[in-house]
Amino acid sequence: MSVASTDLATLAVDTIRSLSMDAVQTANSGHPGTPMALAPIAYQLFNHTMQYDPAQPHWPNRDRFVLSCGHASMLLYSTLHLAGVKATDKDGNVLDELSIKLEDIKNFRQIGSVCAGHPEYAEAAGIETTTGPLGAGVSNSVGMAISEKWLAENYNTDDHKLFDYNVFALCSDGDLMEGVACEAASVAGHLKLDNLCWLYDDNSITIEGDTSLSFSEDVGKRFEGLGWNVVHVADVNELSNLADAIEKFRSCTDKPTIIICKTIIGWGAPNKQNTHGAHGAPLGWDEVELAKKAYGFPPEEKFYIPDGVVEHFANNLGQRGAADYQQWNETWTAYKSANPEKAAELQAIFDGKLPEGWDKDIPEFEASEKGDATRNSSGKVLNAIAKNVPFMIGGSADLAPSNKSDLTFEGAGDFLPNQYGGRNLHFGIREHAMAGIVNGICLSGLRGYAATFFVFTDYMRGAMRLSSIMHQPILYILTHDSIGVGEDGPTHQPVEHLSACRAIPGLNVFRPGDSNEVAECYRAAMQITDHPAAMVLSRQNMATLCRTKYAPASGCAKGGYVLADCEGTPDVILMGSGSELGLCVTAAEKLTAAGKKVRVVSMPCMDLFAQQSQAYQDQVLPPEVTNRVAVEAGLRMSWDRWIGLQGKFVGMSGYGASGPYSKVYEHFGINEDAVIAAAGG
Amino acid sequence: MSVASTDLATLAVDTIRSLSMDAVQTANSGHPGTPMALAPIAYQLFNHTMQYDPAQPHWPNRDRFVLSCGHASMLLYSTLHLAGVKATDKDGNVLDELSIKLEDIKNFRQIGSVCAGHPEYAEAAGIETTTGPLGAGVSNSVGMAISEKWLAENYNTDDHKLFDYNVFALCSDGDLMEGVACEAASVAGHLKLDNLCWLYDDNSITIEGDTSLSFSEDVGKRFEGLGWNVVHVADVNELSNLADAIEKFRSCTDKPTIIICKTIIGWGAPNKQNTHGAHGAPLGWDEVELAKKAYGFPPEEKFYIPDGVVEHFANNLGQRGAADYQQWNETWTAYKSANPEKAAELQAIFDGKLPEGWDKDIPEFEASEKGDATRNSSGKVLNAIAKNVPFMIGGSADLAPSNKSDLTFEGAGDFLPNQYGGRNLHFGIREHAMAGIVNGICLSGLRGYAATFFVFTDYMRGAMRLSSIMHQPILYILTHDSIGVGEDGPTHQPVEHLSACRAIPGLNVFRPGDSNEVAECYRAAMQITDHPAAMVLSRQNMATLCRTKYAPASGCAKGGYVLADCEGTPDVILMGSGSELGLCVTAAEKLTAAGKKVRVVSMPCMDLFAQQSQAYQDQVLPPEVTNRVAVEAGLRMSWDRWIGLQGKFVGMSGYGASGPYSKVYEHFGINEDAVIAAAGG
Repeated sequence: MSVASTDLATLAVDTIRSLSMDAVQTANSGHPGTPMALAPIAYQLFNHTMQYDPAQPHWPNRDRFVLSCGHASMLLYSTLHLAGVKATDKDGNVLDELSIKLEDIKNFRQIGSVCAGHPEYAEAAGIETTTGPLGAGVSNSVGMAISEKWLAENYNTDDHKLFDYNVFALCSDGDLMEGVACEAASVAGHLKLDNLCWLYDDNSITIEGDTSLSFSEDVGKRFEGLGWNVVHVADVNELSNLADAIEKFRSCTDKPTIIICKTIIGWGAPNKQNTHGAHGAPLGWDEVELAKKAYGFPPEEKFYIPDGVVEHFANNLGQRGAADYQQWNETWTAYKSANPEKAAELQAIFDGKLPEGWDKDIPEFEASEKGDATRNSSGKVLNAIAKNVPFMIGGSADLAPSNKSDLTFEGAGDFLPNQYGGRNLHFGIREHAMAGIVNGICLSGLRGYAATFFVFTDYMRGAMRLSSIMHQPILYILTHDSIGVGEDGPTHQPVEHLSACRAIPGLNVFRPGDSNEVAECYRAAMQITDHPAAMVLSRQNMATLCRTKYAPASGCAKGGYVLADCEGTPDVILMGSGSELGLCVTAAEKLTAAGKKVRVVSMPCMDLFAQQSQAYQDQVLPPEVTNRVAVEAGLRMSWDRWIGLQGKFVGMSGYGASGPYSKVYEHFGINEDAVIAAAGG
Repeated sequence: MSVASTDLATLAVDTIRSLSMDAVQTANSGHPGTPMALAPIAYQLFNHTMQYDPAQPHWPNRDRFVLSCGHASMLLYSTLHLAGVKATDKDGNVLDELSIKLEDIKNFRQIGSVCAGHPEYAEAAGIETTTGPLGAGVSNSVGMAISEKWLAENYNTDDHKLFDYNVFALCSDGDLMEGVACEAASVAGHLKLDNLCWLYDDNSITIEGDTSLSFSEDVGKRFEGLGWNVVHVADVNELSNLADAIEKFRSCTDKPTIIICKTIIGWGAPNKQNTHGAHGAPLGWDEVELAKKAYGFPPEEKFYIPDGVVEHFANNLGQRGAADYQQWNETWTAYKSANPEKAAELQAIFDGKLPEGWDKDIPEFEASEKGDATRNSSGKVLNAIAKNVPFMIGGSADLAPSNKSDLTFEGAGDFLPNQYGGRNLHFGIREHAMAGIVNGICLSGLRGYAATFFVFTDYMRGAMRLSSIMHQPILYILTHDSIGVGEDGPTHQPVEHLSACRAIPGLNVFRPGDSNEVAECYRAAMQITDHPAAMVLSRQNMATLCRTKYAPASGCAKGGYVLADCEGTPDVILMGSGSELGLCVTAAEKLTAAGKKVRVVSMPCMDLFAQQSQAYQDQVLPPEVTNRVAVEAGLRMSWDRWIGLQGKFVGMSGYGASGPYSKVYEHFGINEDAVIAAAGG
């Protein structure tokens, strides 16, 4: 085998390989084989393909690169380092230092290094999304491609083309085996996203061994069925073949493209290449040295960067990117003069800010015994906000009429194939891809939302977790809460999901107790721009409380607040959320009439309440009052923190049942009598 | 439109439609359109295709019918009723009454009716699995088909063919849009499951409207890519076309088959058919009457069953099924004489029992400071058990070498295409399908297990929930718990998953604290045959405790037990699980040395502990001792119940970090000092 570097391109490719091997070996942990296999692709994309200025890593019109096979993180780190991508500060300002320093690479997989085991968004400029859980990255890439289409359609003018970027995603067998990838691919094919290119690392190796153990499908044919342009590359080491394939992507104008690349895992490591031994463990220094020899590199030198490689990137990517960026900046300057209003919207998108007056139309709801389903109030509040946040887009996994998640005001429109200006997305019955796509939309600066039945958060928790890890302010609109779902029965009645979602760190779970709490929970959620929010909403009506009699719903901003109180120290605190808040209120009335001193605490968002000062928490839930009753048509788990060992809980302890919702409530004994009894009344 | 019934077959089909309409209309809730569309398919399958004896609904060699589009539940209920499927008691004995009575249908979607909103397994004989969450049923069907192959390969002899059943699944656009269905289809195509037939209801309608909104792929081509035999039926009302298509399934011997059936939702309802108005809401009595007129039925009569329809089923399905069953029973009798040992295994499968001596080789582990990773002990215990439970089969989502989930004893073997006798399944990187498939395997009487990294339970919660709803004893082997994962970082470190999984009602989450607890947790889990179990296991080593010094690990059977105690009332109770149990033990030693009275409680399974008598719980956690410290490298939520408002918690409060695991533990302050400080030491 003679693979010694003979030109700058090969030298650069082999440097990516060599840095990746050394980092994994030094950490004694990681995945060396895939960076070695995919180095030519990363090289070709960054140095010769992408519209990307390493000096402006947040340039809005940059091509996006998503490493969906996040375990190959060293591929990204090595490439970003050699490409000279600049670091940015927390506000996004470019700093005069590298985003990935050689020191970071040397500290790969150590605490404090930006080079984490898997790429972590915002750890370093150039990492466009957090990847690792397979299938996540490719689903994000569809959201990024949707965003480009939407931005181009809404903001480009005949005179000024601000958006024309492409999205490239590198993916593995594992990505493509995951269902979420198929869902996302189906959406992309349906929408004819010709700005999206997946490069599939077809290496025939998985952790358990050869893909023939479990993966024998004809991926190309599957993707043709999904409406994709399918291109093959027989050997990624032939850079001209890669370039040709990318050209086929560029020239296809009605479909997304998948480039199926035959690769050899651990390429260049004489004893381990093409085996699963090169996948998830260091090669061993001996094998690393042999590989370096094969590349013609000094075998014992670690983190070696041959002369000319950095310059080679600077002369290609660097110069091309700088020119592209400069030209775009001129367009942007001209655009700002010509279209000040649109430009202001764009600036808000670029800055991650809400526009002036975004909340001015949030309604106040009049007190009403009949009330309304909170999913209905949610529809009204969502529309009132979205009307004034022109870059808020989203949709449902085929449940918009039930989720009340459609934007219905004039001009909202649908986002459809070749009709990319609309704000109502149709995700089909693909919850996981929906959440992954909306992650991609939020990463592109837009305020995205995703709607489905609450029970189906089980299908998309992976993506919800990533929303939170990446601090993206995605709004999850989750209707058909708990046994209030009624006739659809246990499979459709979320009982454990409140606790399960509250368990996701950083996800703010709101369960508003009437229409005005819906309004105030939305107001709070929209302003928290660094955390996702889950809005849990009812199918059934609940009374709209009289806010002159009870405390104002603005207390929702603190997560929990005293809704109704007594004189002096309460005998009992009733606390509840959502559809059970009303039960607390009416039970409290009866208890009070019977001479009890009762406080009612509304707890629409435990996560926010837990963030308040201890003083505030103690004010709402005085430690000396241990007679506490929580009421929620879900499981008890997340309430134990607030009710304590002596606390009582009126709610569910197992799965629901099929029947009209009021009968289901009775069946499970969630009613006023139970609350009164638990309170000792 | 003239669709009046002209023969018994059409009459039967229209009766299914009519019963379904009436039930939905009477409930004023449900999905009428799909039963109306798919009635010919259900009719053709049951009455003319399936090997199924309505008098023996648990016959092991029956063809399986899975209604993956569970919202069309009335299709199943109507058909089971007309087909005369008999009820069974809790032990599976056939009763002399119908499984679905007309009264049940009249009480569709009411509490107490076996006709729930979606089909609920075990509510009534003939319901083979719980469906409703889309994609679940088709994934189950793959598990059922795998089971048939496995049973046939292991138990059929040249003389006696006991197993040759087929599995039919009816699925919708929604099923096929869900990623889990694609994963499952890929597995089925890979394994060449020619005993599996999906019938796809291609009606071009979803809840939001026409499928053109979100679903335009070429399903046939996609399935060809997935390795399936693709057959088309232009109009399901032409029963002969359906029969021909089913014949094409029967004659295909190297692939699963999908029959793509063009249908018209709400068929026969003149104003609503072919619109999404026929999907998820009653048609209205007026429209119901018009549809009945179109069928030539008395328009005002409800729950009308024309003369001859029940007899028509009896004369076809009934007679055919009885003959088939009788013949099989003769074979089974002969088999028992010829192969008593194998027959005993089969009897255990049919009865859902563990074989004699199943636990005789469970090892005891010697005390060791170095200890072992619980994933390693798990591999040993799993093998020790599976060796003696010949019908325990399972596998991993491409992580077997990491999960230690391979059966390595002689004769275990791999389950591969055309090699169906092996016990090690290879699911590929498809967690959700894996869990759905293993549900199907357990529903077929085998003891199935599914392995992956704990963090990826997020990908398969939907199916885990269904394991529990269906009371199936699936064993989830979940390694790489918490921040002990180390270098792979936050995306791979489950921190909220313990609470999130403990929240699933009926799922027993075990987190053993040393090798002997692994053994005892397995022993407990295996014996609970009506609940799934999640075995949460570490990547890193933990000490094997000396069980003469500490209490025996058999306490695991109670979920929580006193591991180490003091004289008199403890000053503090330290409790922990898994990798943090050792921290409690060493911290307790130091605290004791400093004069504190310390009790250590091991809590490997909160779910089981919560099921113990209050007396036992109080004995382990005396109410008067409120100084309690819980230690777990996860979130606090599920511990609040045990530590109370005054309790302390040493664990995680957010996502992890990438680094060597011991450094990550230090970074987050989960160590002996923290435990001692929390204990007030």
